[in-house]
Amino acid sequence: MNYSMISYILGWIFNFEAAFMLLPGITAIIYREKDGLAFLVTMIICLAIGIPLIRTKRKNKVFHAKEGAVTVALSWLVLSIAGALPFVISGSIPHPVDALFETVSGFTTTGASILSDVESLSHCILLWRSFTHWIGGMGVLVFILCLLPLTGGYHMNLMKAESPGPSVSKLVPKVQSTAKILYTIYILMTVVEMVFLLLGGMPLFDTLCLSFGTAGTGGFGIKNDSIASYSTYNQIVITVFMILFGVNFNAYYLLLSKKVMQAAKNEEVRYYLGIIGLAIVAIAVNTRGMFTSFGRAFQQAAFQVGSIITTTGYATTDFNVWPVFSKTILVILMFVGACAGSTGGGIKVSRLLILCKSARKELQLYLHPNAVKKIKMDEKAIPHEVVRATNMFLFVYIMIFVTSLLVISLDNLDMISNFTAITAALNNIGPGLGAVGPTGNFGCYSYISKLVMIFDMLAGRLEVFPLLLLFKRDTWRKF
Amino acid sequence: MNYSMISYILGWIFNFEAAFMLLPGITAIIYREKDGLAFLVTMIICLAIGIPLIRTKRKNKVFHAKEGAVTVALSWLVLSIAGALPFVISGSIPHPVDALFETVSGFTTTGASILSDVESLSHCILLWRSFTHWIGGMGVLVFILCLLPLTGGYHMNLMKAESPGPSVSKLVPKVQSTAKILYTIYILMTVVEMVFLLLGGMPLFDTLCLSFGTAGTGGFGIKNDSIASYSTYNQIVITVFMILFGVNFNAYYLLLSKKVMQAAKNEEVRYYLGIIGLAIVAIAVNTRGMFTSFGRAFQQAAFQVGSIITTTGYATTDFNVWPVFSKTILVILMFVGACAGSTGGGIKVSRLLILCKSARKELQLYLHPNAVKKIKMDEKAIPHEVVRATNMFLFVYIMIFVTSLLVISLDNLDMISNFTAITAALNNIGPGLGAVGPTGNFGCYSYISKLVMIFDMLAGRLEVFPLLLLFKRDTWRKF
Repeated sequence: MNYSMISYILGWIFNFEAAFMLLPGITAIIYREKDGLAFLVTMIICLAIGIPLIRTKRKNKVFHAKEGAVTVALSWLVLSIAGALPFVISGSIPHPVDALFETVSGFTTTGASILSDVESLSHCILLWRSFTHWIGGMGVLVFILCLLPLTGGYHMNLMKAESPGPSVSKLVPKVQSTAKILYTIYILMTVVEMVFLLLGGMPLFDTLCLSFGTAGTGGFGIKNDSIASYSTYNQIVITVFMILFGVNFNAYYLLLSKKVMQAAKNEEVRYYLGIIGLAIVAIAVNTRGMFTSFGRAFQQAAFQVGSIITTTGYATTDFNVWPVFSKTILVILMFVGACAGSTGGGIKVSRLLILCKSARKELQLYLHPNAVKKIKMDEKAIPHEVVRATNMFLFVYIMIFVTSLLVISLDNLDMISNFTAITAALNNIGPGLGAVGPTGNFGCYSYISKLVMIFDMLAGRLEVFPLLLLFKRDTWRKF
Repeated sequence: MNYSMISYILGWIFNFEAAFMLLPGITAIIYREKDGLAFLVTMIICLAIGIPLIRTKRKNKVFHAKEGAVTVALSWLVLSIAGALPFVISGSIPHPVDALFETVSGFTTTGASILSDVESLSHCILLWRSFTHWIGGMGVLVFILCLLPLTGGYHMNLMKAESPGPSVSKLVPKVQSTAKILYTIYILMTVVEMVFLLLGGMPLFDTLCLSFGTAGTGGFGIKNDSIASYSTYNQIVITVFMILFGVNFNAYYLLLSKKVMQAAKNEEVRYYLGIIGLAIVAIAVNTRGMFTSFGRAFQQAAFQVGSIITTTGYATTDFNVWPVFSKTILVILMFVGACAGSTGGGIKVSRLLILCKSARKELQLYLHPNAVKKIKMDEKAIPHEVVRATNMFLFVYIMIFVTSLLVISLDNLDMISNFTAITAALNNIGPGLGAVGPTGNFGCYSYISKLVMIFDMLAGRLEVFPLLLLFKRDTWRKF
């Protein structure tokens, strides 16, 4: 294990975290809020740890997949713990576990909150909550890769471990350039959304927070009723951008490279949009009696479907009161998730596609036992390792789900709340049903349950394996 | 597709079904019940179809895995439809879908009932319900294999498709001998249970029905409160035998062959018993406040755990009112299921073991990317094909689960009832929670939902693939 390189990168995590806090810091100055001091204190702590760490001598720069995974997992832990300090120091969220829950929920773009009254928070705290979504959405290590003059062959192992999806590919030969392209698209799209929201008459502060939340597919609202009190125009803008941020960013790169046909052929994106379309129509028909017109039902269905499948978690209505059919669709979408290579969570459409194709092949083997058939996606054969890793992802994901469910069931809340709470945490969504529905929050759970969900949110964002490696004794052995 | 061989075997299914009905027929004569006529009519119909079918000329005896799977799936359909006739003809269950549901629930050893008052049924009908469990438990084709002078290499393909578990192995070189050994053990154990129940003062008719239900891990009761009104002694006898019938029958064969050490080393059986032990203790501790003593809590926990993990489905208490932790454990056990090569359903302990070992290997590959490691069970390497098929089983199983859940959610019953109804159907358990809990029944669902659950019960019993093949156009093509 290359400890010197790991601590070097962790040092940069501290430094970048301090830099990120400039934004809420400036907000505090503008709004003259004393909570700003909490950010100042945290920045000093981060730099005091970070600067010495990046100055230590690195013995060698060899960096394997293992080290990549461990570094990413540790980075996210460090990021979350340091990110929680302003909440505790300012007294906005006094208990450390609650503050950590809120911060992990932010960085992992979950958007599950333990707060019942977000409107009482100061502007700088609200902005920090939403900004964590934006940082976590595309990934902090991908961000560092854009700016840091890292050398050696380890860029890819960091990016692989942090980026969601069954197989992470480079857009261009150089990893650093790939990271830059991704962030450029990300920033551009965020700005475009802000412009559209501003045109709808939304205040600047709100556009900033909500665009961060949409871009990272996070879902922290800045109002107690999430997005319900904003105009229909702004709800539609957010709907469209939620769905856009759930698209595989490779497709956008192809569009920018004027390879329109290739982008349009992307199987994952086509299925993703197909599922969204079907779900919206089904729910709109099923809930049409609850709204003044079919158009309104359609718009509300579109918002909720877009919010849930992209694992954003904003809400404009309490879908707890919807018919069971519509609720069942939403719960299924929670597991489906967005596209690989997007900022969304969940199992991912591409994984499900790989599994469907494997199942079809397995059935085919019953009929033609000796047929040799490769599973293909976008006309390219999927390597055997990717299929195997996808299968294992599904199983480990289920095991984490079941174990978490069992632990939090000790709190004796109803089974629907428990089931959807873990679903929301592990898939980085935010709200579930029952007590953790759009009008509820996660404050009702014990600290042990919250720690379990913190683990689940991180496991969901980092797609299970990097986090599990931390708990394996073999990982820390020298060899 | 070898149609002549398939119809030959289907003919035998009809004839055997007629023979099976002798038992309820005799019961009707003893109790002088006019429902016996319904069995007589059904027997005549079965023989009228069956005898001509077995007389048709078979062109060739080549029989592939495909034909084995299709034959088994069709046999189970034929068995269920013919088996439902007495319910309809006697008027005990007038609607054909309800009667089919009850019969499929019987043969697949599910034990889910649409009846709210079983005590009003005649003795011959009650016996037929329970007898279907016994026939379906070890498998009707395995039974036919014992008696029929089938020649050619297709025995194994029939047995493979009908017997549960990731990989079906022969106990002895000849398939027919294996089938005979299995049925001998099965009959012996059933008789031993009957003796123990008779010693507890249970009436002969009840011992017969309940032993059939235990042996097949079925779960149809003959009282409205299932097993609750029987003595504690008899409840304990049933607990022990439920757990025994969930053990891999290979272990019993090893015991009979005096290979005690080898039987004791069976990994699946050890984990199976370990899970049962842990679950009983956890539930007993969790529910101890609900019973007069810890001993009583332990006994009740043991009955319910044994009933659920073996997918029998008998109940002695309404676990709907248990704390959420205990209910969550039961729901998890519903999915775990019993051992492969037993009469129980569910995913099976051995499949979960294979998946756990694969996941550990996958994690290991992160650390040592070039390590070549085989997954082993009982000190033997598991073939790659078995691992792959297990993975695919899990995924297809989940897809069937999700699709079924979506369809039945249109009935607008609560989500817990829906979730556990599909869980109970697909894992061949019987009761779930909520409306389909131990005190409820499946009568509350629409006929469409019942048809979905009929499919699920068959898919669960035949472990998914044989049934799916029926719906593939390629299956019916000549090549």
